[in-house]
Amino acid sequence: MDTPSRKPDAAAQLPATAGATVGRRKFLTHGITAAGAAVAGIALPARAAEPIGKDFPAWATTMGKPLSTYGQPSRFEEPVKRYTGSAYGTLAPGTGTARTPLEKLEGVITPNGLHYDRSHNGTPEIDPAKHKLLIHGLVKRPLTFSIADLSRYPMVSRICFIECAGNSSATAISPEPPQGSAGLVHGLVSCADWTGVPLALLLDEAGVDPAGKWLLAEGADSAAMSRSVPMEKAYDDAIVALYQNGERLRPENGYPVRLLLPGWEGNMSVKWLSRIKVTDGPTHTKDETSKYSDPMPDGKARQFTFEQGVKSLITRPSAGMTMNGAGLYEISGLAWSGAGRISRVEVSLDGGATWRDAALQGQALPKSLVRFRLPWDWNGQPAQLQSRAIDEKGNMQPTRKAYKAENAVDGRFHNNMITTWSIGADGSVKNVYV
Amino acid sequence: MDTPSRKPDAAAQLPATAGATVGRRKFLTHGITAAGAAVAGIALPARAAEPIGKDFPAWATTMGKPLSTYGQPSRFEEPVKRYTGSAYGTLAPGTGTARTPLEKLEGVITPNGLHYDRSHNGTPEIDPAKHKLLIHGLVKRPLTFSIADLSRYPMVSRICFIECAGNSSATAISPEPPQGSAGLVHGLVSCADWTGVPLALLLDEAGVDPAGKWLLAEGADSAAMSRSVPMEKAYDDAIVALYQNGERLRPENGYPVRLLLPGWEGNMSVKWLSRIKVTDGPTHTKDETSKYSDPMPDGKARQFTFEQGVKSLITRPSAGMTMNGAGLYEISGLAWSGAGRISRVEVSLDGGATWRDAALQGQALPKSLVRFRLPWDWNGQPAQLQSRAIDEKGNMQPTRKAYKAENAVDGRFHNNMITTWSIGADGSVKNVYV
Repeated sequence: MDTPSRKPDAAAQLPATAGATVGRRKFLTHGITAAGAAVAGIALPARAAEPIGKDFPAWATTMGKPLSTYGQPSRFEEPVKRYTGSAYGTLAPGTGTARTPLEKLEGVITPNGLHYDRSHNGTPEIDPAKHKLLIHGLVKRPLTFSIADLSRYPMVSRICFIECAGNSSATAISPEPPQGSAGLVHGLVSCADWTGVPLALLLDEAGVDPAGKWLLAEGADSAAMSRSVPMEKAYDDAIVALYQNGERLRPENGYPVRLLLPGWEGNMSVKWLSRIKVTDGPTHTKDETSKYSDPMPDGKARQFTFEQGVKSLITRPSAGMTMNGAGLYEISGLAWSGAGRISRVEVSLDGGATWRDAALQGQALPKSLVRFRLPWDWNGQPAQLQSRAIDEKGNMQPTRKAYKAENAVDGRFHNNMITTWSIGADGSVKNVYV
Repeated sequence: MDTPSRKPDAAAQLPATAGATVGRRKFLTHGITAAGAAVAGIALPARAAEPIGKDFPAWATTMGKPLSTYGQPSRFEEPVKRYTGSAYGTLAPGTGTARTPLEKLEGVITPNGLHYDRSHNGTPEIDPAKHKLLIHGLVKRPLTFSIADLSRYPMVSRICFIECAGNSSATAISPEPPQGSAGLVHGLVSCADWTGVPLALLLDEAGVDPAGKWLLAEGADSAAMSRSVPMEKAYDDAIVALYQNGERLRPENGYPVRLLLPGWEGNMSVKWLSRIKVTDGPTHTKDETSKYSDPMPDGKARQFTFEQGVKSLITRPSAGMTMNGAGLYEISGLAWSGAGRISRVEVSLDGGATWRDAALQGQALPKSLVRFRLPWDWNGQPAQLQSRAIDEKGNMQPTRKAYKAENAVDGRFHNNMITTWSIGADGSVKNVYV
């Protein structure tokens, strides 16, 4: 028996080695049954116990902060923030991206404060009491919906990723491998628990004319961001989303209402949604003709590329980190596919020569980020880490060479190529092209 | 074809009824296939289209706000906050609860800013560079771990709920049904995507003595909050958690490290975890003898009640809301069980006389909040809404009468009784005891 004293009696009885750092490492005999992954032979950085109880820190002896109505991160987490600088010099005011710091996060949910943001003329501050969604065009009965109206409809919730069509563009077009962090280069992808009204319900309310085969979706922002969407997607899994991770959408993610097209390029999930027009064909808006289309090596361009390809990325270790000597590390990363479920993620330690399966964490939900993990006992020698994802449709993430072969020299959208992190004998982690 | 002009041409061609409110409602012919729930005969509050394009709001004509590094909710969502007032008068400074506003949220993930918080002497502001976790007691080798040490271990992620043992206590002991909102009365439950190191890994590092059957887990807060945990739970699914919804734990949820015991009473998932002592039996700390134990009608008390019972709650409509006339509503709510998966949620519209199945949203993960939904065409007459959950072990949520029969008059912990919302002909929604 024991009493929960602040001066643990056992601390005074610690072995004579207490306080010394243990240089040798211990190997585990138990498997990680909680993870569902068998792990054997892991070198770990634990240290012998140091006595505690003599010098309690201030937080253990004084009353803490009072209750708060809306919590914020610890001030020690201040460096964990979205990257808002541009990798391509100064952009026009109001346009740009805020990228998720993927390498500093874990799990699959992106906290709302760090969800990526791409805007074309800034984030509008919309009064939800005055916002309307119009459905018109080739419909029997044009309708407007207030946010209060929408809130009475049956809803659906699903965890899914959104990825910008321009994500990872730096590795597609930069002659030299960019050395920015994983989030800076690849952080235009995030994942949340979204809730809203199935778009199909609202279209049925308006009554789609048989000639209506496409939609024009337009935002209320001052860029009037707009995209064309085939009707099939609307009746597949499109959502008129009101909630993001439980609470109402964040302003930069479309407050008070956005379109959500699971698995399709992020730009099509039109934020600040104010208008859906049913049309007989694509509208060819400025936002789908000036950007997001893929030029091919033969000089032609693909008209539309809606579905985001199968992709993965090792987030830890990744560029800019430093390995702290030989020994155990966990390789941790994210995989996703616009086509559905991730069925397998493979990891290479030798630049793609050989591969082994990583463990997929949890349920591997369709069109969601999926966390993969692989324990790695690093021997201190140079290594080249890669991951490649395979989805349930059999799509496999392409090599850089394969991506480049299918796209023009300046092709930069829908880049789902394999990323390579080179580990140096000095512990440095760099991006390389292989 | 169309151009994405700010003055949609079709708006000028709207029918003569534009601008009028449609009093009649339309019935749907399509099922909600995206939700996996067949919905037929739904009365919906859509209105005929009003012309847009004449008076654009300021946000559609001026540049929006610049990119931000850490986003915040819209200022229009200011009322969505945790309830920090006490239902029982003023508590001692530093102690109390901040409750999740369940009735204002959707989906299953609780955003970190709104996760519930129960603290016993305030929220400590811990410097992660100085924090240590000690494992000692009946172990072969006492060890301390810095946060950097812990961050190198293999991790696991899982979405799971945490519920305070004292959640819903008002309905257990208040002679009259409390009329606070769903979150005010029942908001000591939240759900997040947690990531951390399996506790079993760390115990294996220290080497548990065969005589070690229990753990003492203690926090670094100035209340030295501490609880006893049976060793079986440590080797089942206990996690030493570092991340909450992707980012590091929030201060009020245990930053920089907390224990996480999925499905068990929240108080045991010790926050600001600083010490784990392996013991031969329970320690009987002040926090497990003065609170959280259940007195029974015969004058005895249950020593421990670790697992949170199967439970559900309709969050919309709920107490304090007002129904806006007869017609379609979606009944939406949450279900959870400490024993594992929710297998079924039933809803009654007549105070428990008859029941129908609600649709479970998504994957219904074990020990996670699960969203359930049921479309309801309200006829405008008085009704009594209840939900009851059944889990994979066959446990069924008890009625109020059954709960009271098993607990003393002043029993208030582990209250998982069925909640009844009474709908009045005037549209009022009240809590009633049935």
